[in-house]
Amino acid sequence: MRPYLFLLLALIATAAHAASPPLTARLGQVQLTFALNAAGQPTYAVRYGQRPVVNASRLGVAFAGGGGFDGPLRVLGSEVTDVDNTWQPVWGEVKSIRNHYQQLTVHLRQPAAPGRRLDVVFRVFADGVGFRYEWPRQLALGNFVVQDELTEFALPADHQAFWIPGDYDTNEYLYTRSRLSAVDNATQVRASTEIAVRDAPDAQAVATPLMLKADDGLYVNIHEAAQVDYPAMQLHVDRASHVLTAQLVPNAVGSKAFLHAPAHTPWRTIVVSDKAPDILASKLILNLNEPSKLPDTGWIRPMKFVGVWWEMQTGRSDWKYAESADTLGAQGQLIPTGRHAATTANVKRYLDFAAAHRIPGVLVEGWNVGWEDWFGAWKEHVFDFTTPYPDFDLPALAAYAKAKGVQLIMHHETSGAATGYEQRFDSAYQLMNRYGYPSVKTGYVGRIIPRGEHHDGQWMSNHFVRVAEMAARHRVTVDMHEAVRPTGLHRTYPNWLAGEAGRGNEYNAFTDTGNPPAHETILPFTRFMGGPMDYTPGIFKLRGYQAQHPARQVRTTLCKQLALYVVLYSPLQMAADLPENYEAHPDAFKFIEDVPVDWDDTRVLEAEPGEYITTARQEKDSQRWFVGAITGEHARTATLDLGFLPKGKTYRATIYADAPGADWHTNPEAYRISQQTVRAGTRLRLPLAPGGGAAVSLVPAE
Amino acid sequence: MRPYLFLLLALIATAAHAASPPLTARLGQVQLTFALNAAGQPTYAVRYGQRPVVNASRLGVAFAGGGGFDGPLRVLGSEVTDVDNTWQPVWGEVKSIRNHYQQLTVHLRQPAAPGRRLDVVFRVFADGVGFRYEWPRQLALGNFVVQDELTEFALPADHQAFWIPGDYDTNEYLYTRSRLSAVDNATQVRASTEIAVRDAPDAQAVATPLMLKADDGLYVNIHEAAQVDYPAMQLHVDRASHVLTAQLVPNAVGSKAFLHAPAHTPWRTIVVSDKAPDILASKLILNLNEPSKLPDTGWIRPMKFVGVWWEMQTGRSDWKYAESADTLGAQGQLIPTGRHAATTANVKRYLDFAAAHRIPGVLVEGWNVGWEDWFGAWKEHVFDFTTPYPDFDLPALAAYAKAKGVQLIMHHETSGAATGYEQRFDSAYQLMNRYGYPSVKTGYVGRIIPRGEHHDGQWMSNHFVRVAEMAARHRVTVDMHEAVRPTGLHRTYPNWLAGEAGRGNEYNAFTDTGNPPAHETILPFTRFMGGPMDYTPGIFKLRGYQAQHPARQVRTTLCKQLALYVVLYSPLQMAADLPENYEAHPDAFKFIEDVPVDWDDTRVLEAEPGEYITTARQEKDSQRWFVGAITGEHARTATLDLGFLPKGKTYRATIYADAPGADWHTNPEAYRISQQTVRAGTRLRLPLAPGGGAAVSLVPAE
Repeated sequence: MRPYLFLLLALIATAAHAASPPLTARLGQVQLTFALNAAGQPTYAVRYGQRPVVNASRLGVAFAGGGGFDGPLRVLGSEVTDVDNTWQPVWGEVKSIRNHYQQLTVHLRQPAAPGRRLDVVFRVFADGVGFRYEWPRQLALGNFVVQDELTEFALPADHQAFWIPGDYDTNEYLYTRSRLSAVDNATQVRASTEIAVRDAPDAQAVATPLMLKADDGLYVNIHEAAQVDYPAMQLHVDRASHVLTAQLVPNAVGSKAFLHAPAHTPWRTIVVSDKAPDILASKLILNLNEPSKLPDTGWIRPMKFVGVWWEMQTGRSDWKYAESADTLGAQGQLIPTGRHAATTANVKRYLDFAAAHRIPGVLVEGWNVGWEDWFGAWKEHVFDFTTPYPDFDLPALAAYAKAKGVQLIMHHETSGAATGYEQRFDSAYQLMNRYGYPSVKTGYVGRIIPRGEHHDGQWMSNHFVRVAEMAARHRVTVDMHEAVRPTGLHRTYPNWLAGEAGRGNEYNAFTDTGNPPAHETILPFTRFMGGPMDYTPGIFKLRGYQAQHPARQVRTTLCKQLALYVVLYSPLQMAADLPENYEAHPDAFKFIEDVPVDWDDTRVLEAEPGEYITTARQEKDSQRWFVGAITGEHARTATLDLGFLPKGKTYRATIYADAPGADWHTNPEAYRISQQTVRAGTRLRLPLAPGGGAAVSLVPAE
Repeated sequence: MRPYLFLLLALIATAAHAASPPLTARLGQVQLTFALNAAGQPTYAVRYGQRPVVNASRLGVAFAGGGGFDGPLRVLGSEVTDVDNTWQPVWGEVKSIRNHYQQLTVHLRQPAAPGRRLDVVFRVFADGVGFRYEWPRQLALGNFVVQDELTEFALPADHQAFWIPGDYDTNEYLYTRSRLSAVDNATQVRASTEIAVRDAPDAQAVATPLMLKADDGLYVNIHEAAQVDYPAMQLHVDRASHVLTAQLVPNAVGSKAFLHAPAHTPWRTIVVSDKAPDILASKLILNLNEPSKLPDTGWIRPMKFVGVWWEMQTGRSDWKYAESADTLGAQGQLIPTGRHAATTANVKRYLDFAAAHRIPGVLVEGWNVGWEDWFGAWKEHVFDFTTPYPDFDLPALAAYAKAKGVQLIMHHETSGAATGYEQRFDSAYQLMNRYGYPSVKTGYVGRIIPRGEHHDGQWMSNHFVRVAEMAARHRVTVDMHEAVRPTGLHRTYPNWLAGEAGRGNEYNAFTDTGNPPAHETILPFTRFMGGPMDYTPGIFKLRGYQAQHPARQVRTTLCKQLALYVVLYSPLQMAADLPENYEAHPDAFKFIEDVPVDWDDTRVLEAEPGEYITTARQEKDSQRWFVGAITGEHARTATLDLGFLPKGKTYRATIYADAPGADWHTNPEAYRISQQTVRAGTRLRLPLAPGGGAAVSLVPAE
């Protein structure tokens, strides 16, 4: 295939047809071209220097019942504007973010009556392009229903892709690394029975963020930004042509989005660079999101936490209090099994541990009535979010936590019943305020109610925003599990600290396959492109944690678990393992105690998806730096150039490294902690075992 | 057909098969028989004296995915209990209600594993039978999904039926009077374009309450009581066999009800008598509902009201403020058309009128922003229920109403977006409390959101209960338009004063066909069997009210409009016409001023569906009586035996009667008001014009 020639021909044909010259915008090496094709349809193309990123690709939106923007259009006019400013996130990887782009706005109109208008707005950054459709207010277009978005990403070659299936309800699949021409998710979707709800009717559909690598070394990431009031975009892969087509998650009646002009879609994003670390460092998606909508953000606190959680994931105890909701005692009461985790005594144990180890939060799952029958029945009112089990003394624990200087984190599992949750919003959040819970972890394990809707459709996307808004009104931060994957909305709702929408560490607890060693080297290039994930790192007992399944193991070394606190950025980080497992390794746990969750600066020192990542970050309002280095299957040596340290200043480095002979499979818990004095010129060589990692803290030497 | 023989054979077969003798219950002339049929399936039959009401009819419930109660069952045991008590409604047609029945409970079990259990509970009253399915708590049955209810009503002959189509979203059709063998709704459903949302896929389905009349003069009414957490039941008519089969309104995913044992269906009701007035006087449906769930009912006030409403229905003014939400002025503001009805000045005019005429309430529709684009787009957030139009001064009007001793009635149109309404419940009801609104009229004009759900499905049935509960928490009474038709739930939620769910007077405003003269003689036998309807009687200007459609007219006389205040029972009654039309007939309006909306006693003196009804009622806590007599197409003389008056007491009767020559078509507004002294022995003869009526007030002569 000769993409240049194709593009050139397309442009010539367009000019001949519509008498409108191609329109362009560029910044640095990134160039965007807009043109009408021979059929009068809008197209765009993206280049990075001389290299094609996206060949001429269709733009358009089809409406239910017709009348949309799927036919030829006329260009009414266009504008180019340059924007360059900086802004400060409430929390994040860096103190300050530069928002620098050239914007091309193309005004389009249907050639025939009713002559509806559509704008396509492109923003060209130094590291990629964002574009979206905007419908201005117009009498010819009030309410409309999007049936299909026709946006294409015509890739110039059969790239390597890191992909998960395009599923309407989950992002918790393992990543596949394959050529685009080999994308087929059918077998995986069928076999992934460990995922509660799966609905992936198109075997050639993949989810975004989609990470691509061209054979010439160009890295391309396709995702979206600011997905609000619109379904999530997935991508259908034409395996022969390598053209990806936007595929929107449908609603309960088979259409995609109900809108009213003025309206716009989310931004479609293409991040591009010939250096993989640039992809991870990109702030393009955040820049395309709106500034904070919260009137006050001073109350928002990133935090580390432990929780009554891993013990249930590993089968040592239960969320539920009784075996069944249908076997009652003589007084009509539930009959306790004695395996309930969220008891007053056990929660106090975690609170004591947190207080002793400077961990600010304790999550408690299974505290509220309903777990005997919470899953799988598509049931609307499983939990009321306010009634604790009889052995969970809510007021006493709130008082105990307060006295200890630790905060309890609330848990709201909805079973997927979003309507039921909304009906109980007020009482649920009032309870949190009454007992001083600063944060909530929400969950949507199950088929969605409204029945027929999907986790990633328009209705649920709006629901998740409503949750963030409701939480903000109550000064509560939120961590949404089983929500739609993030698209940078934490800029707009900074209390939306993290989400799940990906395959977390928990799969090592409840599946034999778990997550392979490469998993965490792919996640930052895919799931984390949209925003923080509550991955729950920090497992120290990497084998033998599941009595019923002794063969299960986490496919990392202990040091890699430490490194994840730096490599995987999140303002909410769990220390996921049991207190007793941390107490067995107090020296290693010191890193988790020390590592912060909010940063002034970040440097991705080296990265290759599926292989390795080394990241250094500077603590918020501090001179301390932390480094995490991870590798996938293969042992390697991470070479750490400490050039990011201030010149002339001496630092004390504490290095948590895989011990000789360490190996995720045979010897995962072997580590060695050493200290040395370093400065800006120092180059550290960190040996990483297969599936291994290293963590370093750098403290100014006084 | 020889039903007795059939029943007998069935019973013999059953006994042979299952070795269980038929079980019976009876009260007065009503006898219920339960038996297993030859296939081991449960059946029931009902007789009234020697006459069959329902021949042996199938019982059963099929589950989605199987495992339900659609096959043979075993009888585990049964009990018969007798109940006789009385209770006092918070408001109603009578002061005290006797609840007298014999109950037969049949315990059934699946013969094979998992051996699930089901009870069928029959209550036999002197005027009919109620029965429901009850699933006791059992380990073999937790969550389940009802796919179909197999309940049959095998009628012994081809009765006359008064029916409307079985539509998932509306009950606003005109009634058809036909034999069961002639039921076919297809043409009517297609042609009824005046009804906003219609979905009636089965041409042989009819709605309940279904009124039937046998050729031997037996009257039978089939409906349901206490429809909660379950879809509405419609009836499929087998035109050859006259067997009616329950047909449940589906949810968005095609099943019918998500339940968890313990659970039960609503009561299926059969009211039967050889006297038509007994059908209207029946309290069977109310008796089958649960007592009030409200902790306090002292604040609940039945009331009459006028409203900014008919002027919009008749096209004189608009709900909306601007022509379009998409044409804005220079400051981004809506551009008023000058036709907006709910202006401060106009509302004051209605408040003044109400205060001057002892009408306690004023409804105002179109007060809130959103009416420019409120209908037809299946849009979730049309109204916020809190933002008034700029020309509606909410605080000033609240103060004005208070000073006048009149109460404003709130209006919440949802456009069918129940989810959006629930999301805004709190702010909407807080606003009502803040400004002293005691009552709200809700509306659901449009396709339902959650999309794919129906007005009459399980989800919406639960929504309507949630509205009643939310309103009660805020001490607000509610009048639900476009809700599921009532089933006596106003006993359980006495703040749920009335509903629509039927074809009201408004159809005379916005259609040429309007409502025929027989309409109001059918409604009490059908729609009103479940509970009060906000029919909005009281139109005085019966022709020429619609400038754009001069041929439109109400198909009653003026006196029939008066009589409707007595014949159609509701604790909420609108005086629907414009103040100026009442001021043109102050003598006739006196009846509306006088007639109460709450009663101590009620006597249905004569009634025949489709023909005539004469009803007398005694005012609550008063000696005053009021009589309404209406006729359908045909002129008649209502003969009024005043035997209900206390013996020996003299009354002053004021008689509002059709004048000689009055006729709904040619001379509807001709009336004559006369007075005379009467007593218990008096027989009044009231001449009713075609489409006519008469109203009488009876005041003790002091």
